[in-house]
Amino acid sequence: MAVDYSLYLVTDRILVGPKDFLLSIRKALEGGVTLLQLREKETNSREFYDIGVKVKELAAEFGVPLIINDRVDLALALDADGVHVGQQDLPLAKVRNIIGPDKILGYSVSSLEEALQGERMGADYLGAGPVFPTGSKKDAAEAIGLAKLKEIKAGVSLPVVGIGGIGAANLRVVKETGIDGVSVISAILSQEDPCAAAKGLVDLWRN
Amino acid sequence: MAVDYSLYLVTDRILVGPKDFLLSIRKALEGGVTLLQLREKETNSREFYDIGVKVKELAAEFGVPLIINDRVDLALALDADGVHVGQQDLPLAKVRNIIGPDKILGYSVSSLEEALQGERMGADYLGAGPVFPTGSKKDAAEAIGLAKLKEIKAGVSLPVVGIGGIGAANLRVVKETGIDGVSVISAILSQEDPCAAAKGLVDLWRN
Repeated sequence: MAVDYSLYLVTDRILVGPKDFLLSIRKALEGGVTLLQLREKETNSREFYDIGVKVKELAAEFGVPLIINDRVDLALALDADGVHVGQQDLPLAKVRNIIGPDKILGYSVSSLEEALQGERMGADYLGAGPVFPTGSKKDAAEAIGLAKLKEIKAGVSLPVVGIGGIGAANLRVVKETGIDGVSVISAILSQEDPCAAAKGLVDLWRN
Repeated sequence: MAVDYSLYLVTDRILVGPKDFLLSIRKALEGGVTLLQLREKETNSREFYDIGVKVKELAAEFGVPLIINDRVDLALALDADGVHVGQQDLPLAKVRNIIGPDKILGYSVSSLEEALQGERMGADYLGAGPVFPTGSKKDAAEAIGLAKLKEIKAGVSLPVVGIGGIGAANLRVVKETGIDGVSVISAILSQEDPCAAAKGLVDLWRN
């Protein structure tokens, strides 16, 4: 599957509030999000599944691939397009074994060493960051900055998506590192109009 | 695989403390636990995996099957013998699809209706309860009592394990319901000598 990594939305149901969650995602998809990651850290498996069914329908309506964060079992149960794991999730090689060769496998990295490991272990793309300091992820590490992001992109052949503190104000300088896309949470979901916010980021990325 | 459900230990690392966790499980296995469930509710996937690797080694040393609570992906990554899901976990039929026909699939029920559903959907055994009020599980429902436990066992052909508030003081009356085994946490792990506690329960079950 040819994946467009340019505007990768990671969800945060707590940030948006449960009531507006699906509507916010719909607006973001209308605005041009190219890839969607469902990230649920504070819920039980059944609630995750029930939300996932709805989000998958929504993503399918827009022809956007759905990636599940961390929970490989949820990715399988939902028959999502892929799964994204980090350093605190299941070992990458185990995940590849479980999901098989066809599902998209993303891997969070914050150094070239981790990026090369991800490449060796079967990742399809890398989420590199946090590029800038961010409040959206409680467990985020120290910011790596643009120089390191550029180093990671130059050092691997996989698509690299920058994540962490990226928004309209800094998207151009981030793109100049040569990466394949940006992953955002609050730059879309914390904005009054998620559709306009997504459109704005798409425009900045293209021009 | 012929499974002996008679003394089924469910782990609780928070109850035991991380330091004594593996040692407590070893002692419980020495005492005669016949089936082991690894239950981790407050940890990330990698920590769960790392603990699981160690617990699996221990279970294998004693020839006791290892069942993983809730996390189907962990059961696959660890190649555990099975997985146990409840009403708040992934749908049972989805779990059976993911794990295939050979792994043991357990299902938590608190009514005959849920038990019959579990039987239809592909469970290999049922964990019925809570039989008595219990403090070991934060999310446990109201106690079902012995009459309902007996009704569940009589209504299905699957092995039924009673869970919730079961220990040395009430094991005989629980066994008289005709069930196939008891599932315990604190009756072994909260005791000063988990080996002696397990031995005592085995003796009570056999005689």
